[in-house]
Amino acid sequence: MKLGVVIFPSKTLQDRANGLRKRYDTHYALIPPHITLKAAFEAKDDEMETIVEQLRKVAAQVEPFTVTVGNVSSFYPVNNVIYFKVEKTPQLLQLNELLHSGYFPQQREYAFVPHLTIGQNLSNDEHADVLGRLRMKEYHFEQPVDRFHLLYQLEDGAWTAYETFKLGKDGN
Amino acid sequence: MKLGVVIFPSKTLQDRANGLRKRYDTHYALIPPHITLKAAFEAKDDEMETIVEQLRKVAAQVEPFTVTVGNVSSFYPVNNVIYFKVEKTPQLLQLNELLHSGYFPQQREYAFVPHLTIGQNLSNDEHADVLGRLRMKEYHFEQPVDRFHLLYQLEDGAWTAYETFKLGKDGN
Repeated sequence: MKLGVVIFPSKTLQDRANGLRKRYDTHYALIPPHITLKAAFEAKDDEMETIVEQLRKVAAQVEPFTVTVGNVSSFYPVNNVIYFKVEKTPQLLQLNELLHSGYFPQQREYAFVPHLTIGQNLSNDEHADVLGRLRMKEYHFEQPVDRFHLLYQLEDGAWTAYETFKLGKDGN
Repeated sequence: MKLGVVIFPSKTLQDRANGLRKRYDTHYALIPPHITLKAAFEAKDDEMETIVEQLRKVAAQVEPFTVTVGNVSSFYPVNNVIYFKVEKTPQLLQLNELLHSGYFPQQREYAFVPHLTIGQNLSNDEHADVLGRLRMKEYHFEQPVDRFHLLYQLEDGAWTAYETFKLGKDGN
């Protein structure tokens, strides 16, 4: 089973992101707007219990924080992903670090650049066009984050919620 | 904000349902396959904390159980919804009852018929055709249920996970 760990930002920000994702993100229908803490990794069914236990420990170590989401950028030329920048707060870095050490699969494809994807799989021309237009706009969202979610992927690529983990010593 | 309370069945059953939903369910991209415990209801942002607290109390009152999902049926002529029948186990009825009493909005559009939707918004002809074919097949799934999820709806109709509630005295 493929698992992933994400933060879902506020409804306001999700609605805003979806207005763009609808047109530019081929994964629009597979998962709501999210900030990935740990990208898709394989786990066996009988590992779920341990993974949940480990995630609870991770959540307990990080206190709730404020996340700042800002202007549009892109991973070009690595790939044509367009995203809202997410500020590298210490808690985000800590969460990402804890989710790639100890029990968890540690390999990463890229260094951790927190982001909220709004476009992907665009042609080079479309990517340049969309990025050029969105870069001129000002975006700024600040919001509290007090939880993250463990999701699993269905055969068709869509993601389903498995469990919520509340941040902080008093979280779970 | 619109909220809903659902059970996500096992990945196996979700994959099976999605094979059909892909073709027959206009809500396919908005939410993974689910059993609705409480249909969409309105709540203000400042009610969330109380709702979560109440849901925790509901979850604690109902022990984990086995759900049996079986052959295909339809709500026709009320509407053209085609679904997998879900057995009315005491725990499902209890959950539904608790989620429509006390603090929670109590109005229901229909009596509680637990089900897992696989088709909707079909024309009368297509409904009759699909139902006729699927009714001849045998479906039987039995699986443990130990949690439910509180979801909220985005502007585009898609649902995002807010929190998981584990059933039973030792759940949360």
